[in-house]
Amino acid sequence: MSRLDVFINRMVSQRACLNFAAEQTKEMTGPVFELGLGNGRTFDHMREIMSEREIFVFERQVESNPASRPTEDMTMLGDVRDTLPEALARFGATATVIHADLGGHNLEKNDQFARLVSPLIEPLLCVGGLMVSSDQMYFDNLSNVPLPEGAVPGRCFIYRRDA
Amino acid sequence: MSRLDVFINRMVSQRACLNFAAEQTKEMTGPVFELGLGNGRTFDHMREIMSEREIFVFERQVESNPASRPTEDMTMLGDVRDTLPEALARFGATATVIHADLGGHNLEKNDQFARLVSPLIEPLLCVGGLMVSSDQMYFDNLSNVPLPEGAVPGRCFIYRRDA
Ligand SMILES: C[S@@+](CC[C@H](N)C(=O)[O-])C[C@H]1O[C@@H](n2cnc3c(N)ncnc32)[C@H](O)[C@@H]1O
Ligand code: NI
Ligand code: NI
Repeated sequence: MSRLDVFINRMVSQRACLNFAAEQTKEMTGPVFELGLGNGRTFDHMREIMSEREIFVFERQVESNPASRPTEDMTMLGDVRDTLPEALARFGATATVIHADLGGHNLEKNDQFARLVSPLIEPLLCVGGLMVSSDQMYFDNLSNVPLPEGAVPGRCFIYRRDA
Repeated sequence: MSRLDVFINRMVSQRACLNFAAEQTKEMTGPVFELGLGNGRTFDHMREIMSEREIFVFERQVESNPASRPTEDMTMLGDVRDTLPEALARFGATATVIHADLGGHNLEKNDQFARLVSPLIEPLLCVGGLMVSSDQMYFDNLSNVPLPEGAVPGRCFIYRRDA
């Protein structure tokens, strides 16, 4: 398996999981959170499939393609370790979809970071809300959701707040 | 169609076309040229599917993921406008596969550059050799090859030197 194969699997999985999450929550109106803007490709996709919902982008430093840049009022600028607690104070448990793709090349570091941010993400989700992640997360009270067709096991993860 | 959709289509098309080109030329031993290393994902894939052939990488500035970095003797460092003519002097018409992914965000600029480098690429290909490109190219004596299954029309192009 080449790095191109792995990358395609990751992109295709993100898309399949995001489409699934949008569909599953389509009757809900609460905000959507994109953690990590990067190039802005998944943000662009989320705008398309959840155009009627507010999408807030959490990013340390906006460096996306100009075509996929959130407006200033929809950007939570700063380290997610700071901005996630701020979002909890502002929004409470209202997020309908949270997508996280915060990792870099170092798998061990990604895992450590996933452990660190899991408790900051968990309280933001509303009942029925879904969390889509490129890394395995460490939640106390969210359940694991089976992957939709087209998603590659290990390349993405979906969690739900059941109650 | 989101930017994520477009990007996935491009990656999937590159892979399908590279796999096809490797298969079609598998009895040939001449070198392979990768024009534009970028992150190194397609280079990594080419190494995997054409492991018995020499792969030379043409790149202005090597900034790939460290896992996908060519050795120094296989790197043609510099602008392709200089290094392609140097390659012709060194190798003649011996390349079995040439892959080009030199473009950036500006489609008009990409097209201008494709026109500029087409005559520098064309003489490098051996008879039966294939050229795979993310941009439409402007060759005098190469024929258009129908895309293999899985490749998305408009996202990649294949050309062959028939004689
Ligand atoms: C889109 S990236 C290639 C991505 C690569 N296919 C991958 O899968 O990771 C394009 C690369 O072409 C290089 N490039 C663009 N114009 C060039 C030129 N005139 N001479 C040499 N390299 C060039 C850039 O530096 C960049 O690294
Ligand atoms: Ni591999
Ligand atoms: Ni679109």
